[in-house]
Amino acid sequence: MARIVMKFGGTSMAGIERIRNVAARVKREWDAGNQVAVVVSAMAGETDRLVGFCKEASPLYDLREYDVVVASGEQVTSGLLAITLQALGVPARSWLGWQLPIHTSSAHASARIGSIDTDALNASLADGQVAVIPGFQGLAEDNRVTTLGRGGSDTSAVAVAAAMKADRCDIYTDVDGVYTTDPRIVPRARKLSKVTYEEMLELASVGAKVLQTRSVGLAMKEGVRVRVLSSFEDAQDEGGHRGTLIVGEEEIDDVERQLITGIAHDKNEAKVTLTNVPDRPGAVAHIFGPLADAGINVDMIVQNVAHATGSTDVTFTVPRAELARALDVLGKAKGPIGYDTLIHDTKIAKISVVGVGMRSHAGVAATMFDTLAERRINILAITTSEIKVSVLIHEDETELAVRVLHTAYGLDAPEGEAA
Amino acid sequence: MARIVMKFGGTSMAGIERIRNVAARVKREWDAGNQVAVVVSAMAGETDRLVGFCKEASPLYDLREYDVVVASGEQVTSGLLAITLQALGVPARSWLGWQLPIHTSSAHASARIGSIDTDALNASLADGQVAVIPGFQGLAEDNRVTTLGRGGSDTSAVAVAAAMKADRCDIYTDVDGVYTTDPRIVPRARKLSKVTYEEMLELASVGAKVLQTRSVGLAMKEGVRVRVLSSFEDAQDEGGHRGTLIVGEEEIDDVERQLITGIAHDKNEAKVTLTNVPDRPGAVAHIFGPLADAGINVDMIVQNVAHATGSTDVTFTVPRAELARALDVLGKAKGPIGYDTLIHDTKIAKISVVGVGMRSHAGVAATMFDTLAERRINILAITTSEIKVSVLIHEDETELAVRVLHTAYGLDAPEGEAA
Repeated sequence: MARIVMKFGGTSMAGIERIRNVAARVKREWDAGNQVAVVVSAMAGETDRLVGFCKEASPLYDLREYDVVVASGEQVTSGLLAITLQALGVPARSWLGWQLPIHTSSAHASARIGSIDTDALNASLADGQVAVIPGFQGLAEDNRVTTLGRGGSDTSAVAVAAAMKADRCDIYTDVDGVYTTDPRIVPRARKLSKVTYEEMLELASVGAKVLQTRSVGLAMKEGVRVRVLSSFEDAQDEGGHRGTLIVGEEEIDDVERQLITGIAHDKNEAKVTLTNVPDRPGAVAHIFGPLADAGINVDMIVQNVAHATGSTDVTFTVPRAELARALDVLGKAKGPIGYDTLIHDTKIAKISVVGVGMRSHAGVAATMFDTLAERRINILAITTSEIKVSVLIHEDETELAVRVLHTAYGLDAPEGEAA
Repeated sequence: MARIVMKFGGTSMAGIERIRNVAARVKREWDAGNQVAVVVSAMAGETDRLVGFCKEASPLYDLREYDVVVASGEQVTSGLLAITLQALGVPARSWLGWQLPIHTSSAHASARIGSIDTDALNASLADGQVAVIPGFQGLAEDNRVTTLGRGGSDTSAVAVAAAMKADRCDIYTDVDGVYTTDPRIVPRARKLSKVTYEEMLELASVGAKVLQTRSVGLAMKEGVRVRVLSSFEDAQDEGGHRGTLIVGEEEIDDVERQLITGIAHDKNEAKVTLTNVPDRPGAVAHIFGPLADAGINVDMIVQNVAHATGSTDVTFTVPRAELARALDVLGKAKGPIGYDTLIHDTKIAKISVVGVGMRSHAGVAATMFDTLAERRINILAITTSEIKVSVLIHEDETELAVRVLHTAYGLDAPEGEAA
C-alpha cells in the first residue's frame, strides 16, 4: 500500500467524458490498495471565463471577490469527479479548500499555502475513501476564500502530498514527461525518466512549461517525489517507466547521471539597455530599486566595463508582459539614475543548458560558446549558475541554437527512436 | 434608515450588463441611507448546466456532491455583484453560505434553513457595507454544503430578512407584481398592491408562480413583509406603489379589502379514480398510506356516497409529474385496497377563487358554481378552505372559466386600464 496524490489539469477535466477517464485512472490506483487523494483543476477554459466576468464587472476588481468567483471552477470539477468515482464503485468525497482547510496567506489571487489540516483527511483515507480536493484554492485567516494564482493546482497537489506524507505525487498533464528539449524543435529530443528538482526548476523557469515553478520549489523543500505523466497515454519508456520522476539528486545514481540534462528556451523576455549610466556606487540601486518596488522581475543583468568617460551601459531582461511598465518606471527614474538613452528589444530569446552534472565538469560553457560561434549565432548576454548556463540571442536563431546544442551535448536520441 | 433585503433572480443576474442594472438598484437603496443585504440567484441557465453535468456524471448522483457542484452558480454571481457594487463606489462584500453561516438541515438538495448567524453580518451592515449573499445554499451540521432545492433563493432571502429583522424583503423578478389572475388569459387583470400571506400561499400553490411557496410560508411564520416587484421596470400604480406587498391581514385595512383577491389556475395536476372501493373503515388509509410513503402529494380528494353494493368510488388529484409513480404504487396496492379499476385523466385543470374576505361572506361558492353552470362548464370535483374555493374542470375550459369568474367577482380593471 502506498499513499498517492494524483493531480489532473484542466484539459483532463474538460467535460464528463474526460472526467470518466480520470476516474478510471484513479480507480486503478485505488484497486491496487493505495490511499489516494486527487487534486483537480477547473475544466479547461472555465477559469478564463470566470476571470473574464470579473474584468467585465470592473477592471479594478477586488481580489477577495475575484477569488470567490474563480475558486468555483475547481469546486465544480471536485464534486463531479466524486460523483463519477462513486458511479464506478469507488467511495469518494470532495473536500473544499475551506473544509480541510488548506490554510493560506491572505495575499488574494496569489496566496501561499501555509499548512493543511490532515486529521479529517487521514481518517477519510484510512476508511478507504478517495479524497477529491480542488486545486488552486485555500482559506485565509479571516475565513475568506483565497486562490494561489494561475497554475496553482500543481502547487496544491504538492502541498497536499507533503501534508499527507504521500509516497508520490503524480501530475497528469497533456505531455508524457519532461524532455531533453522541446520535441517540436528537435524531433530527436528524449524523454527523461528522472530529473532532479534543481534541474526541473531551471527547465521550468526557462520555458519547459510542464510544471508550475512554485510547485517544483515546494516539492524540493518538502522532499515530495513528483512524477509528470500523460493523462491520455499509457506509454512506458524502455526502462518500464511512465512519465518523468522529479526527485532529489541522491535518488539518481551515477550511471543515470548525465552531464547535461536538457536545453531550454524562453521567448518571453525582453532586453532593456540603459546607456551611459554614471559609474558610481549606488547607481545600479537606482535602476533596480524602482523596478523591484513595481514588482517587475529582472532576470539576466550585464554591466559592461566602465567607459573612459566614467559611465557604463547596463543591460538586463524583464518578462515581455512587464516591459511597458518597466519602461514607464525607468522613464520616471531618469533623473536619479542619470542615464542617456533607454533602448529595448523584444526580438530576443534565452537559451539555457541545464544539468546537475555540470558542477563537476569544466568546459560546459566553452562547448556552448564554441557551438554557437560555429553557426555564427551572436551572444548578447551570458549568465551562469551552478547547474545552468544561459545566453541571450536573437529570437530568429532560437530553433537553430537549440538544435545544434542538443546535438553538441550528445542528447539526440538514436536514429529511429525519436519522440 | 431601514434594513432591507433585496433578492434578484437568475434572469436579473444573467450577465454583467444585467448585474450592473442590479447594482444600480442596490445603490439607490444604499444611497438613501438604508442597510442593505442582497440575496442573488445564479445566472439564468447556469443551475441547469450544472445539474446537467451531475446527471451526465451519474444518474444516481450523490446529493452531497450535487450540492457542492450546483452551489457554485450563486457563489459566482455573489462575487460578481460585490465587484460591480464596488465599481459604483458602494462598499460591498460577499458572504457565502458557509461563511455566515446559514445553518440548514442535512437534507441535501432540499435542505431547510435552521438559523442564520448574524453577528458578522450585522457588524458589516453597521459599517455601511452591503452584504451580498448567495441564495439557495447553506451549511449542514457536518460542515458540508447544502442547497435548498430549486427556487430556494426566495426562501434564502426571507430567512435572511427574518434573521436580520429587516423592515422589508424586496423580491425582484421578471413580473411587476401579483395580479388578480394571469394577464395572458385576462387582459383586464389588475395588479394587487397588497395581498395577505394566506392569499399569496393559495395563489402561489395553485399556479401564480411569482414566489416559491416555501418562502411565503416562512414569511408568514416570521412576519417578514415581502414585496414582489420588477427588476426591469420602475412603473408605479395609481397609489404610488411599486409591485405587490405581501403582509399580514392586519396591515390591510377595510377599504382595501376585497371579497375576492384573485383567480388562480393550475394545469399541473392529474386526476385518479379508483372504482368500487369497499366502503369499510380503513379502506381510505390503504389508498393514501402507500402514496404518502412514496412521497406523492395528494391534493383534492372526493369520495362519493356509497353505492348500494357497499362500495364507493374515490377520486383525487396528484401532480402530473408524479402520476406514473402514483399509478405504480396503487397498482401494487390493489389487493389491500380492493378496488375494481384504476382510471386516470391528465386533461384537467384546477380553478381556484381566493380571498381572505370570503370568511365573512357566504355565497362565494354559489357565485362560482352559477357562473360556471351558465357557461355549461362541468365541475368534476370541489374543495374548499377558509379562504379558497377550488373546482376541477376539463383542461380545455380553463381560459373560459378564469375569464368569466374574473368578471363575475368584479375583478376586471376599468376599460382602458388593462395590464
